[in-house]
Amino acid sequence: MNSDIRIVKVGGAVVEDDASLRSLLAQFAALDCPRVLVHGGGRSATRLAERLGLETRMVAGRRVTDAEMLAVVTMVYGGLVNKSVVACLQAMGVNALGLTGADLNIIRSHRRPPRMVDGEQVDYGFVGDIDSADGARLLRLLADGIVPVLAPLSHDGAGSMLNVNADTIAATAAIALAAEGAEVTLTYCFEKPGVLANPDDDSSVIPLITPASFSQLVADGTISGGMLPKIENALDALRRGVSRVLITSATDIRGERGTVIANR
Amino acid sequence: MNSDIRIVKVGGAVVEDDASLRSLLAQFAALDCPRVLVHGGGRSATRLAERLGLETRMVAGRRVTDAEMLAVVTMVYGGLVNKSVVACLQAMGVNALGLTGADLNIIRSHRRPPRMVDGEQVDYGFVGDIDSADGARLLRLLADGIVPVLAPLSHDGAGSMLNVNADTIAATAAIALAAEGAEVTLTYCFEKPGVLANPDDDSSVIPLITPASFSQLVADGTISGGMLPKIENALDALRRGVSRVLITSATDIRGERGTVIANR
Repeated sequence: MNSDIRIVKVGGAVVEDDASLRSLLAQFAALDCPRVLVHGGGRSATRLAERLGLETRMVAGRRVTDAEMLAVVTMVYGGLVNKSVVACLQAMGVNALGLTGADLNIIRSHRRPPRMVDGEQVDYGFVGDIDSADGARLLRLLADGIVPVLAPLSHDGAGSMLNVNADTIAATAAIALAAEGAEVTLTYCFEKPGVLANPDDDSSVIPLITPASFSQLVADGTISGGMLPKIENALDALRRGVSRVLITSATDIRGERGTVIANR
Repeated sequence: MNSDIRIVKVGGAVVEDDASLRSLLAQFAALDCPRVLVHGGGRSATRLAERLGLETRMVAGRRVTDAEMLAVVTMVYGGLVNKSVVACLQAMGVNALGLTGADLNIIRSHRRPPRMVDGEQVDYGFVGDIDSADGARLLRLLADGIVPVLAPLSHDGAGSMLNVNADTIAATAAIALAAEGAEVTLTYCFEKPGVLANPDDDSSVIPLITPASFSQLVADGTISGGMLPKIENALDALRRGVSRVLITSATDIRGERGTVIANR
């Protein structure tokens, strides 16, 4: 077994559809290394909220989370999606353990203070900004053959759950493991096969992006829009000790055709 | 620290009310021994089902669990109630870890076959009857200072979650730990201070019931009705290695005024 650690983040669209979930998990189960799965679930949360007559309000891509919405995301992310994934992995012989940040106090956060977004004062409610993650505990779980399945939820240490973006949970876990001396690959599953040089051509995947080539790709306009913050976050994870970030499709989590973001 | 293990089962009425939950958890946090909490959540599940327009059908005290109801109990037991308890215990300095039977494959079950109940053929749907529990794993978690918080959910090992009665989960965990050689006290929190000699007099708690005195109490009519199966289950746990069963109120989980059921 390879001892390098893989953190795989899959979005809601993949885990909320039974067939794509099974296909993704079969690939994940076949990875021959210590690994962590991080999942989303936003579409299911929005659907449950709708059925309960609650309005979903997103600001800059983040869910405004009042007390009722916190109950919804705790049910959907921590219960429905997390346990579906865990039961499915167990059926594949993977010793999965579902965790929110509250379990084992593995990821602690604080409630995000109200802030100005696009000229408007926004109170995100029960949304967490990360304070700390227990990389040593995650490492001990992995050494024990356990596969953590992380829901995008944390807690404030004072008794309240908090809603956290799944990409952020994945980066936090990767950075915390790297801080313990582990070699970590952080994988983001994406609707495209990787970062494309031409957005209309799926065969134009850029195989490697380094900090140096990133500046070049931004300068010549190849990378722009929604891809910019994604790659900036990846470069930040590299600066904080993560060995490489892989951006790939959910049908290729080994990343054989994806984009690797690495220092060199 | 006392090395005897306490399994404390609390019903929905206690964990679904914020004030009573905090009071119960403060008592539980103060217990100076390795411990496991098992919770219910039926009232919240029924309430969510109602808001979603689903009808709750109970047969002989058990919830008939079709696919939609399974999603509801997975959300409520595995998500909302479990994570509220975990976050609250973490705030009290207890290193809680929320688990369903699927997590770490800790409790495996199979779907209950349709059966005759009161002359009617009943298919309970996604309701589990227990096959096995991993007492050795539970013991390792406890030895590591972790406090498992068990939701009344299991899985079938083939990818499906199953709904299991919380009393059964508690007895299963207690028996599995006893099979590993641990001294185990199984505590059921109850709306009364203990088993009463006179149901109208809360001060008439029977302090000790043994297999011998139980026969006597049944013969003379002191114990009857709904209390009978509860005590029969307790005696079964004793036969399967549990040291003692405590029936007490949620305001007295140490059981200073409750009923102890023990072999002698």
